[in-house]
Amino acid sequence: MRKVEYPPALQELIRQLHRMPGIGPRSAERIALWMIQAPNSRPAEISEAILRSTQSVLNCRECGFFAESELCVICNDPARDRSVLCVVEQPTDILPLERTGAFHGVYHTLGGKLSPLNHVGPEDLRFDALLRRIKEAAPVELILALGADVEGEATASYLAQLLAGTELRMTRLAQGLPAGIGLENADDVTIARAFSGRTEFPR
Amino acid sequence: MRKVEYPPALQELIRQLHRMPGIGPRSAERIALWMIQAPNSRPAEISEAILRSTQSVLNCRECGFFAESELCVICNDPARDRSVLCVVEQPTDILPLERTGAFHGVYHTLGGKLSPLNHVGPEDLRFDALLRRIKEAAPVELILALGADVEGEATASYLAQLLAGTELRMTRLAQGLPAGIGLENADDVTIARAFSGRTEFPR
Repeated sequence: MRKVEYPPALQELIRQLHRMPGIGPRSAERIALWMIQAPNSRPAEISEAILRSTQSVLNCRECGFFAESELCVICNDPARDRSVLCVVEQPTDILPLERTGAFHGVYHTLGGKLSPLNHVGPEDLRFDALLRRIKEAAPVELILALGADVEGEATASYLAQLLAGTELRMTRLAQGLPAGIGLENADDVTIARAFSGRTEFPR
Repeated sequence: MRKVEYPPALQELIRQLHRMPGIGPRSAERIALWMIQAPNSRPAEISEAILRSTQSVLNCRECGFFAESELCVICNDPARDRSVLCVVEQPTDILPLERTGAFHGVYHTLGGKLSPLNHVGPEDLRFDALLRRIKEAAPVELILALGADVEGEATASYLAQLLAGTELRMTRLAQGLPAGIGLENADDVTIARAFSGRTEFPR
């Protein structure tokens, strides 16, 4: 008696879905069966959306954010303030910043952060493009919105060296206590940074 | 200033992934970004597996299990015992039964269970095909492996009426305590069924 399994095409679908982040073997099986059985699953639409987005979503030529044409919606918007340039690591860092509504300038994604351990050096990041943009657009402020980790610090320091001797104002995101967190829940480094970066209390 | 969102194709991908069972908006976004960014995500393979499986996976002409040809791997296997026919509700019920290794016969999926509340009547289920198979193959036993709920009971009773007056032996799966469960964790109906269906203790 032969061992009974799903047909090969269904097994392959389960295997492929299982490759997606956060999808275990049980979820993959559940989704695959839903696709081939549920009357309203319309799997062709999902398949098409995957193909279309992975073919048509590019990175903006200027800032590196996701775009379906040469320039992204931010770089295409004449209302954005070109005098302030915010440097981020990844295109995915841009939407969280946008959601705050606190920033009206433009962005530059480096594509990562300096990390000798992971073999990421300056030549792997978009520093050259950043220098060119600074030269061409002459912004007055460069905001470093990099991670508050060792690699983020190293990347910020490297940028500061690159721009030594220029008039450009460089700032970086404040480090301190996250909103809603009491001292008893914050780690030592966070408290130390919040302490050394303390600001004047209005009175 | 325009509101910044992902490009339309990426938004559509997130929407499509979010339709899959168990995938929330955050997971859908995470999977979509993985697809368009991760070097090893190979999204075309996923898209292709969806298309191929939903186009090529059919239901076996005989038993209704998943198949990529007219007959499934079970109905194609000469080593299976055609004299025992196991009736299940859905094709997805077959693999769990196979995994037990306890059954060597063949299956028949009804495609559901009688449920007046959900407008499922006898004409919606594969009873005719079952009667034809019984007539042609003349099995000696029909095992009802239906759910232990009201609709499963109703479906079993209906089948018993259909086959009244035939010689065919009809059995159904035992109802009782699930493995590893103590009395204190079983519900009243389960305990009542386990009690009325008690079996001789070997001594």
